[in-house]
Amino acid sequence: MQLGIVGLGRMGGNISRRLMRGGHDTVVFDRSEQAVQALASDGALPAKDLADLVAQLERPRAVWVMLPAGAPTEDTINTLSELLEAGDVIIDGGNTLYKDDIRRAKALAEKQLHYVDVGTSGGVWGLERGFCMMIGAETDVFERLDPLFATLAPGVGDIPRTLGREGEHSRAEHGYIHAGPVGSGHFVKMVHNGIEYGMMQAFAEGFDILKTRNSEQLPQEHRLALNMADIAEVWRRGSVVSSWLLDLTADALASDPELGKYSGSVSDSGEGRWTIDAAVEQAVPAPVLAASLFARFRSRQDATYGDKMLSAMRFGFGGHIEVKK
Amino acid sequence: MQLGIVGLGRMGGNISRRLMRGGHDTVVFDRSEQAVQALASDGALPAKDLADLVAQLERPRAVWVMLPAGAPTEDTINTLSELLEAGDVIIDGGNTLYKDDIRRAKALAEKQLHYVDVGTSGGVWGLERGFCMMIGAETDVFERLDPLFATLAPGVGDIPRTLGREGEHSRAEHGYIHAGPVGSGHFVKMVHNGIEYGMMQAFAEGFDILKTRNSEQLPQEHRLALNMADIAEVWRRGSVVSSWLLDLTADALASDPELGKYSGSVSDSGEGRWTIDAAVEQAVPAPVLAASLFARFRSRQDATYGDKMLSAMRFGFGGHIEVKK
Amino acid sequence: MQLGIVGLGRMGGNISRRLMRGGHDTVVFDRSEQAVQALASDGALPAKDLADLVAQLERPRAVWVMLPAGAPTEDTINTLSELLEAGDVIIDGGNTLYKDDIRRAKALAEKQLHYVDVGTSGGVWGLERGFCMMIGAETDVFERLDPLFATLAPGVGDIPRTLGREGEHSRAEHGYIHAGPVGSGHFVKMVHNGIEYGMMQAFAEGFDILKTRNSEQLPQEHRLALNMADIAEVWRRGSVVSSWLLDLTADALASDPELGKYSGSVSDSGEGRWTIDAAVEQAVPAPVLAASLFARFRSRQDATYGDKMLSAMRFGFGGHIEVKK
Amino acid sequence: MQLGIVGLGRMGGNISRRLMRGGHDTVVFDRSEQAVQALASDGALPAKDLADLVAQLERPRAVWVMLPAGAPTEDTINTLSELLEAGDVIIDGGNTLYKDDIRRAKALAEKQLHYVDVGTSGGVWGLERGFCMMIGAETDVFERLDPLFATLAPGVGDIPRTLGREGEHSRAEHGYIHAGPVGSGHFVKMVHNGIEYGMMQAFAEGFDILKTRNSEQLPQEHRLALNMADIAEVWRRGSVVSSWLLDLTADALASDPELGKYSGSVSDSGEGRWTIDAAVEQAVPAPVLAASLFARFRSRQDATYGDKMLSAMRFGFGGHIEVKK
Repeated sequence: MQLGIVGLGRMGGNISRRLMRGGHDTVVFDRSEQAVQALASDGALPAKDLADLVAQLERPRAVWVMLPAGAPTEDTINTLSELLEAGDVIIDGGNTLYKDDIRRAKALAEKQLHYVDVGTSGGVWGLERGFCMMIGAETDVFERLDPLFATLAPGVGDIPRTLGREGEHSRAEHGYIHAGPVGSGHFVKMVHNGIEYGMMQAFAEGFDILKTRNSEQLPQEHRLALNMADIAEVWRRGSVVSSWLLDLTADALASDPELGKYSGSVSDSGEGRWTIDAAVEQAVPAPVLAASLFARFRSRQDATYGDKMLSAMRFGFGGHIEVKK
Repeated sequence: MQLGIVGLGRMGGNISRRLMRGGHDTVVFDRSEQAVQALASDGALPAKDLADLVAQLERPRAVWVMLPAGAPTEDTINTLSELLEAGDVIIDGGNTLYKDDIRRAKALAEKQLHYVDVGTSGGVWGLERGFCMMIGAETDVFERLDPLFATLAPGVGDIPRTLGREGEHSRAEHGYIHAGPVGSGHFVKMVHNGIEYGMMQAFAEGFDILKTRNSEQLPQEHRLALNMADIAEVWRRGSVVSSWLLDLTADALASDPELGKYSGSVSDSGEGRWTIDAAVEQAVPAPVLAASLFARFRSRQDATYGDKMLSAMRFGFGGHIEVKK
Repeated sequence: MQLGIVGLGRMGGNISRRLMRGGHDTVVFDRSEQAVQALASDGALPAKDLADLVAQLERPRAVWVMLPAGAPTEDTINTLSELLEAGDVIIDGGNTLYKDDIRRAKALAEKQLHYVDVGTSGGVWGLERGFCMMIGAETDVFERLDPLFATLAPGVGDIPRTLGREGEHSRAEHGYIHAGPVGSGHFVKMVHNGIEYGMMQAFAEGFDILKTRNSEQLPQEHRLALNMADIAEVWRRGSVVSSWLLDLTADALASDPELGKYSGSVSDSGEGRWTIDAAVEQAVPAPVLAASLFARFRSRQDATYGDKMLSAMRFGFGGHIEVKK
Repeated sequence: MQLGIVGLGRMGGNISRRLMRGGHDTVVFDRSEQAVQALASDGALPAKDLADLVAQLERPRAVWVMLPAGAPTEDTINTLSELLEAGDVIIDGGNTLYKDDIRRAKALAEKQLHYVDVGTSGGVWGLERGFCMMIGAETDVFERLDPLFATLAPGVGDIPRTLGREGEHSRAEHGYIHAGPVGSGHFVKMVHNGIEYGMMQAFAEGFDILKTRNSEQLPQEHRLALNMADIAEVWRRGSVVSSWLLDLTADALASDPELGKYSGSVSDSGEGRWTIDAAVEQAVPAPVLAASLFARFRSRQDATYGDKMLSAMRFGFGGHIEVKK
């Protein structure tokens, strides 16, 4: 099949490459001419702008937009909606809020254009491992694009089969799903990231407890100088917490058990926040996912106004003085 | 009545003064001779050491230990236990863990000595307002000491009476209770402080949201430059959150709405921690009390090992770089 | 002054009554003819519909809408916007999301109508105690309505003055503030309610720990049968947690220490949820406010899908069986 | 080598079997004669009581106690300490609190007996996969027992090697570590379980949000009927949250996506609680680990006293009625 790809960062470039390896054709565009040339040298058809990209595709066209969420994606989709024709499909592979997907799909439908949202996890490893994809789309549009998704997905691989799954391998077992109507793909991916935050924070807190067991604030006889790298390593082997995140932790700790090169200031992306918004909207108690997000917020601040207020109150009722040095 | 008082800091000194104002006699001792002289000039009988203090008291004696929890209190009680005689009472007015109370009471009982634990809130204001006391004691010992407690307590005052309370005012309405057997006083006080942490953190988070509504990270049109001092003030007047903690907050904000003199590093005392231990022991979900304690722990750190681990994982799966500048 | 009031529930009715006591005139309307008659017998001018209400007011008119947030308020404001004339003011005294205020104010401005948002706490007690009000409005509109607000507010009363406040009493000290532009009133009220949730949950968790100290799951010698009513009562008198919420708790416990008439299923209103949304939007760590909201969500469910999943995992790795009886 | 094993449940039995497969000899005892016979038929030497077990072992002896933590383990160790001789070793492979390990080791040292604590994860799968072990011991004692641990451990297997690890495989890469002095093994295992709770709860909350996206409480157009089994399956393939816990979740969902056979009441074991105690002792913020534990506490209750108190307060300030039906 043929696919147009807009945005040739690490993700978009690898999508193009993996599709070409699988026998598909890609027409590619990026603001950076250099990025386009790099892909062209790998076999992609270069486009000099969006109009050129559209012109090189056969109808019904499919264009995968792989850009930062927000304005870059929105603007590109708006421009494409002027260039494309009835029956064509725009695929948003970025980290878009599912509510934006639904809004866009409605607007595009008025022009008889289709919209597909693809949530992707593990993206930067996708060229080798394949892309784990959660896809929101109308059913017939999904079916039409299936060959592309099948090529991009990791495939069955050598992962032990889930108990109770039998017969031909389902799409899920190949590493991609048609999650539901437009918006579903990004909704599922959003919750995936919410869970990811929670798992990461669980490891972070646990290792913090292990690490600080050697704190000078503890009595000497209660201190333990534990080996962080070996603990991560041993847990990779048969323990209940074995996971890809633990593998990555073991990688990091093997060479730098103090993690000294990191500042401790941790970013968050939209998905973690939107997961909490969804939990609140749905009245789902999500204390772990929320605490994980808040820990990141807190990591980026030296001192909060709220903390100062605690000191002010303590001074008020107890005369405790916690002033600036 | 007559009371021996060991430890003449702000709390111990004011206990002595309030008792003397109420017609009781106090024999006082402190490591600081100056502190003893100050009380003596207010009418207390000075003691030059614990033995002297015990010698000046009539049997059955009562000695109130008002020292920092831990070694200072423990050592003093041990020494007193050698000096006192059957039927005498040791009162611990400090912030002792209730389990230590129970242990001590058992040990003292072997010498026919009695032990009373008094948890006190609002202590530094106690000379004027009276001391709000939660008391753990054997019933007859409590009754014997009642005149002292009644004098120390705030009394009925002009606080509107609770619905459904009628007739003579109970001890609780005078501001002190016999909470139960030894340990009860400090247990109730411990939970009081746990609640206090939660209420404080609720205000801290709320005011943080109000304050940061003017953050430069928000789009200009979403920003609000709210007046923290006026908000605290208006809430004092008929709102659901009106409270003494809010009064203290209003005090602090009136003169320094930026709270600029506080560092944001907030201490915690044993009670907040022990409350969580009790919740865990009793299998009570206490997410708010725990989060309040953790916020204080976090306020005292620049960056945690756990946060650095989050960055390390993010680098591992996404190539995100969050290194030290 | 003259004020139109739409919605004569407990809040709207009492606003009308308190204004009339203060010498103002009110023209009132409610879907319930009975409610209108009740107010009319107290001196209000009855209106038979919105048009009639508008007709009875002199220009520039002010109409206070005191209806449930959402459709009832929205529809009424839309209808009023057709009936009112340039310079008139619509006041929303309900629990509206501040973003809706901003949206409405923009739309009404096109018709030269003004919009004011009033957040009110302690409403059902307002007739006696006055209404604690946080107000968002253009400055000149706020000034025009000031006499009404001044009458509705609690006034200075006998609350001890905040340290550092001197001279003439400010509006905040009378119990109302001009919080800022449109939306500010409801924003501040929203955060107030978020804090309220946190304080309530702090008490709830603390009393849970006190109550379950008598649990049969604890060894007999660790159990304490504490008196909930007396504990609430004693804390009202000089303790750090003294507050109106504690007063209400003491009221409830005095007559029913088991709280047996309550099911334990607790509702939440929009404000608690929106506070978390704001915290997330502003990147403010708000673990206590979020945990308080989640506790209410959880209180309304028998068992969550998530809890069942925990059991399923435990069965998977450990053979633990936690099936339905 | 030769090992005595006391306690032949699933764990103890499999330890014996895996050791015998590896060429070691085991002398086994259990209260259940049937359990002893089952092992004997697999090649173990049966003992009729602890004295007999000790008698059949050559000095210096090693006895592995694999019993429930608490009294069963404590009593057995006490008895063994009477039967064993200088230089012998007692190994506790159960879920003991590390503080108890330290206490016991001190007591046994007076008799020149050694003590080793082994924390094991993934135990019920250990016969096939091997046992992931964290071990606290004196160094020479650990070295003496190393052949046993090496046999029990999973071994290097086909798990991709951690970046930065080179040369001969370390013990950690074989799936066991000498974590440090006595107590270290159970301390590390305890934190492992704390992390496990957090990861499980992260999945539980995420799937709850996915599942309830189809709630009737949402407007029809916002609902999504997502396929839980397929989502778990697809995430196993290249996503950031891939993990053994996810594999187990996929197993459970494949046959029962409603998880209808589980009640939603979830147990907790000591380790999750002790992890929070350690965090509190070390002043480590651990909001996720604590929230995970509290969620389990909450899952076992119909309604809390605290929730009823929230309703009582709501009634007090707002007249909201949330009474029992």
